[in-house]
Amino acid sequence: MTAADLTCDAFLGGRLSIWQPRKGYRAGVDPVLLAAAVDARPGQSVLELGCGAGVASLCLGARVPGLQLTGVEIQPFYAGLARRNAQQNGLGLAVHEADLARLPTELKARSFDHVIANPPYFLRSRGTEAPDAGRERAMGEATPLSDWLMAAARRLAPKGWLTLIQDAERLPDLLAAMPGALGSLSVLPLAAREGRPAHRILLKARKGGRAAFRLHPPILLHEGRAHQRDGEDYTAAISAVLRDGAALPLPG
Amino acid sequence: MTAADLTCDAFLGGRLSIWQPRKGYRAGVDPVLLAAAVDARPGQSVLELGCGAGVASLCLGARVPGLQLTGVEIQPFYAGLARRNAQQNGLGLAVHEADLARLPTELKARSFDHVIANPPYFLRSRGTEAPDAGRERAMGEATPLSDWLMAAARRLAPKGWLTLIQDAERLPDLLAAMPGALGSLSVLPLAAREGRPAHRILLKARKGGRAAFRLHPPILLHEGRAHQRDGEDYTAAISAVLRDGAALPLPG
Repeated sequence: MTAADLTCDAFLGGRLSIWQPRKGYRAGVDPVLLAAAVDARPGQSVLELGCGAGVASLCLGARVPGLQLTGVEIQPFYAGLARRNAQQNGLGLAVHEADLARLPTELKARSFDHVIANPPYFLRSRGTEAPDAGRERAMGEATPLSDWLMAAARRLAPKGWLTLIQDAERLPDLLAAMPGALGSLSVLPLAAREGRPAHRILLKARKGGRAAFRLHPPILLHEGRAHQRDGEDYTAAISAVLRDGAALPLPG
Repeated sequence: MTAADLTCDAFLGGRLSIWQPRKGYRAGVDPVLLAAAVDARPGQSVLELGCGAGVASLCLGARVPGLQLTGVEIQPFYAGLARRNAQQNGLGLAVHEADLARLPTELKARSFDHVIANPPYFLRSRGTEAPDAGRERAMGEATPLSDWLMAAARRLAPKGWLTLIQDAERLPDLLAAMPGALGSLSVLPLAAREGRPAHRILLKARKGGRAAFRLHPPILLHEGRAHQRDGEDYTAAISAVLRDGAALPLPG
């Protein structure tokens, strides 16, 4: 892949510059929303499973100073991009090229205050394969969701939090695969507009948590019940996340 | 139990008169909302698992004419009340006194266009027992949710629909226990007011359905963000269900 196959894109209103493949898996708003939903405090440790080019970890690092950021990425090309993007933005992100189902001994010896993930949305067996192999791997599930959840459960410190974004269609799969070690589950639906079904869900779970499950009211991405005018029509809360790097206002 | 231990309560704005125990399990709005969410057409067959005093089935029968209504109830006292309530309101409801996990041969030989259920909300192992044994049985789960779902899956005709109301806290349990035969799942959250987490969920599933899971926007029971004045403050849609026997306006 040559320089011409990459683009350099602005995130968080220009606070971050992210190199991405022109045709492969390209980060949209989802990793930005994921990062905005993580209630991390300075000095805490964060592990991102399947970090790709590093957008979620770097957005989180841009908002919360002094985090210890670690990423795991199975594809060497994306792991390389994540390292380059961390350096480009002056943020510390230790990237391990590894399968999250078979983490290296060094990572297995550690535990983290937060685990974050934006796993592939579609089952590999469903639909057509993406024309780009890297995009296919990032979009189509090769590692089952249960492996992502198990890796998160194992690497979290006691009372540590998993924050995950996923297609809303996969909520039953996620809940059915939830390891017993993860409790205090809550789901924050994301809907394009008022009156629409959720298209994404943010899921939080706490290692050893015992609170009852909570289904929060949806967060709306766009104003109004239909697209009214040219350009973007993000709600104020979402615009603050995407343009100003704000945290997502999570219900209590 | 003497006549003094029973009350006769109006449902659907007086269209139904329902005998209930004064101190046992008393139907609130949940079975009414359940009935309002069932998209049954005249002539179809409906099986209610755990019908109690028959409120959900009778509300459905009051809205949709010509249904073949069947109820299963394990507690003889409530089965008797359901028969009495059907007769009192001039509606046909065949009540079988049986354990839904061990249905009589006669019912096992039949299949239904709809199965409806309002299973107990709390695990028997959690919390304190209700002082009334009948209420305890109706409120506290003795039969696991998986048995309710399995009985529904078995008794539904191909492409038949399960409609179920449950405490929102139990959504992970429900989804984890969903039999493979039930697909096209959708969840309609019910929230007390705007900005509140869901307190109940209506779940629909179709036998042999293959559509993707849908998480609908919540239906709000009450107007405003806080209780403002004396008396009820139901939203117009919910008031139409509870007072006029309307169907719940379900998203498409």
